[in-house]
Amino acid sequence: MKPETVAIIGAGVIGAGWAARLIENSVNVRIHDPSPNAGKRLTTVFENAERAYAKLTMAARPSKGETVICSSIADAVGNADWIIESVPEQIELKHTIYNEIEAAGPQEAIIASSTSGLLPSVLQSKIKNPERFLVTHPFNPVYLLPAVEIIGGNSTSSHTIEHAKKFLSSIGMKPVHIKKEIDAFVADRLLEAMWREALWLVKDGICTCGELDEIIRNGFGLRFAQMGIFETYRTAGGDAGMHQFLKQFGPALQWPWSKLTDVPDLDDALVNLIVSQSDEQSGHYEIEELERIRDDNLVAIQQALKANEWGAGTVLGTYEKQLFDAGATKTGNQDFSEPIVTMERRVPPDWTDYNNHMNEARYLQCFGDATDAFMRMMGVDADYIDAGMSFFTVETHIRHLEEVRVNEPIFAATQLIEAKGKKMHLFHQLHHKNGTLLATGEHLLVHVSLEQRTTCEPAPDVRANLDAVAQAHANLVLPEGLGRAVGEKQS
Amino acid sequence: MKPETVAIIGAGVIGAGWAARLIENSVNVRIHDPSPNAGKRLTTVFENAERAYAKLTMAARPSKGETVICSSIADAVGNADWIIESVPEQIELKHTIYNEIEAAGPQEAIIASSTSGLLPSVLQSKIKNPERFLVTHPFNPVYLLPAVEIIGGNSTSSHTIEHAKKFLSSIGMKPVHIKKEIDAFVADRLLEAMWREALWLVKDGICTCGELDEIIRNGFGLRFAQMGIFETYRTAGGDAGMHQFLKQFGPALQWPWSKLTDVPDLDDALVNLIVSQSDEQSGHYEIEELERIRDDNLVAIQQALKANEWGAGTVLGTYEKQLFDAGATKTGNQDFSEPIVTMERRVPPDWTDYNNHMNEARYLQCFGDATDAFMRMMGVDADYIDAGMSFFTVETHIRHLEEVRVNEPIFAATQLIEAKGKKMHLFHQLHHKNGTLLATGEHLLVHVSLEQRTTCEPAPDVRANLDAVAQAHANLVLPEGLGRAVGEKQS
Repeated sequence: MKPETVAIIGAGVIGAGWAARLIENSVNVRIHDPSPNAGKRLTTVFENAERAYAKLTMAARPSKGETVICSSIADAVGNADWIIESVPEQIELKHTIYNEIEAAGPQEAIIASSTSGLLPSVLQSKIKNPERFLVTHPFNPVYLLPAVEIIGGNSTSSHTIEHAKKFLSSIGMKPVHIKKEIDAFVADRLLEAMWREALWLVKDGICTCGELDEIIRNGFGLRFAQMGIFETYRTAGGDAGMHQFLKQFGPALQWPWSKLTDVPDLDDALVNLIVSQSDEQSGHYEIEELERIRDDNLVAIQQALKANEWGAGTVLGTYEKQLFDAGATKTGNQDFSEPIVTMERRVPPDWTDYNNHMNEARYLQCFGDATDAFMRMMGVDADYIDAGMSFFTVETHIRHLEEVRVNEPIFAATQLIEAKGKKMHLFHQLHHKNGTLLATGEHLLVHVSLEQRTTCEPAPDVRANLDAVAQAHANLVLPEGLGRAVGEKQS
Repeated sequence: MKPETVAIIGAGVIGAGWAARLIENSVNVRIHDPSPNAGKRLTTVFENAERAYAKLTMAARPSKGETVICSSIADAVGNADWIIESVPEQIELKHTIYNEIEAAGPQEAIIASSTSGLLPSVLQSKIKNPERFLVTHPFNPVYLLPAVEIIGGNSTSSHTIEHAKKFLSSIGMKPVHIKKEIDAFVADRLLEAMWREALWLVKDGICTCGELDEIIRNGFGLRFAQMGIFETYRTAGGDAGMHQFLKQFGPALQWPWSKLTDVPDLDDALVNLIVSQSDEQSGHYEIEELERIRDDNLVAIQQALKANEWGAGTVLGTYEKQLFDAGATKTGNQDFSEPIVTMERRVPPDWTDYNNHMNEARYLQCFGDATDAFMRMMGVDADYIDAGMSFFTVETHIRHLEEVRVNEPIFAATQLIEAKGKKMHLFHQLHHKNGTLLATGEHLLVHVSLEQRTTCEPAPDVRANLDAVAQAHANLVLPEGLGRAVGEKQS
């Protein structure tokens, strides 16, 4: 399913972004771009992507794909099974390049154009095997934004479309197949309508670039990040939903509320106005800084949505599960001869407090999650709880040994101190992935009947699982800090 | 600066959202809406807002403002110092309402219309004291989205504008003053241009509502949440910045890439198409669920941006600092002859877990909040932390004595066991408001320099405050459970 080698023709912001996403996902890339700046741009984008992916997921990352810079199209496409074209939006240029690709590349390799708006039927019209051609239109930064529009032309085969959907999903993207060809597809039609309006607002002196951006990112931009237009409006319509909203908002469409017919001239005066306002707004940042700020924000927002299992967050969650599954196959069956790894994650951005480190309550959340995972291993899972029994924590002792910062990779290792009768005594060690011990959590739990809300004995299979781990862990050294009262002795 | 009583005329989604933001910020509201559904809508929006604010910030929340439902405009505006008009977009209706407001309300009260697009100069044209009139256009959900467009008309005084900016900032909003009047201002011009295009795309069968939303929320919507249009494009332009971007993107504006001149008819066929696609997309959620999902996402995204000190996150950070500071002032004259009440709240719905009671990590959140409140009383407030010092928790012992259920009213009482040198030893008792002891939290903290990340002595005034409480608390009986290790003895 996943190509081994992808050729990339054109390494502008989009081509370089594709390359970065691919090598971060173990795919080898062969890149051709005649521009003297291409090498420098690739280095910057690769560095940004590496930095972003280190924060994006806790899962073990696969090994990186290799990058080869090629001096010709022929050299780049020679043994590629997937070819990305990301050159400027000039139809003749693209036709010439497809010609060269056909002459030198394998006949069955997919050719995917990154065009923002040219029609695939037109682009494929001079290709001899046009069934393998399609548009895969991504969004900048390509290595971080999941969306990709997929559009076939008249001659594109359904196999090509299905193959593209699978491949792009496997590298963490969210492909949306646009079933009818249209200039500019969906995203850029929406963006261009808004962009044209934005230019008028600035040209007419209604607001500055900076003010316009503040309104977006403190207003509807926050809505767009998690629902789009229609679901937002459905929600706003209240119980009557979409019908109500259309009834209420419909008439305003007829009002002269936007510059319907005109396109502002991008003459020197308007260009200079925008450039100077943009300098005032963002000129105190280098573009490199802005790119990193943007990436940090995009990572944090997607992680926030992942915790809520929503939108781009579910895409990230699915991607991460793939990575974990790939990792799990690697690590094999659980070994109880050592403390058990029961929790692994990166510290999410909203877990920090005014002291700029992980809030103390989150230590207990980590230990609580570790306890839950241990319980599930012992058979105290959703079914067991549904059937009316569980463990409740009755006592907790935490030693906060080191500060933990946002995005740091952490894990918990759990030792079963004792499990007798209704009691279970656990000791968790919270570590940084580099091995540093960050905190310990000691917990006494009792087994309860959820109906009577009183203690009772665990079911036989849970008992057996606990006994097996207790026996294995009896050989372990008792951890430092066990059985201590607050302030008794500081490590 | 902050009004004591705000009158709200019209309690639709926007009026109710204003009311919710205001009462969550200690402002009393008097609401008039003739609709029979108004009461139900207010209840729903207030519940949503309460739920969202419980998650939005860890700062102690101020006491809630009071809500009075009034049977007439006169009754609502009688002693208001700020009046919000949020009725449907009909100019004559608005003029009539301003008339009634003038007849019954104080002459100096600000009148703020929530109109999405009518010109303030037109709206204020029949008001006798028009200098006090302005438009403050918020975004749904008003209690969670920071942006608010502020627009004055020809007769609006600069005092009114400045007052509005200060007031709205104080309740966690990001006011943007639009300096030139124009129909639909900025946000709705942008949104309407995009909405019109979206309707065409659906009508022409290019994509469904659901596909369009997926493209937004996995693509440019994520960008919009943190940078707007101009800063995003500046960043995309690479080192050459805005000039480069305009040069590259400019020509596309002339292409026939969007339905420039036409407005689609919202006839039955189009309405039904949208409604059925929207049902397919989101019909498996009740609107109430969608509202909560939206709110959870908006909270999480703003918290993620807060950690990055960017955009809407900086607005939230500033707002939270105000709350922390206010918490510090409020607790000024406290009686220290008993354990000090440091935390009071109801258990929010999302604090419960699969066992249907308060999750164990939330016990530590309660104790952490109580510790924070105690620290602020001792002078360890936002300024102190900004100046580079704080207390860090190094050890925690919790006894979970009773289950705590959703919505139960709880409070923490704090006893200072010892405060010597760099150490502070606290004991919190978590109670149900009926007096039942639910849990105890024993904590050892050390005073640190935030720059060196090492321990140091507290500043003299903090020392003096701690000594005063220590002296007062020396007379208290030592609490049951103090100094105990896990499992040592069960109560």
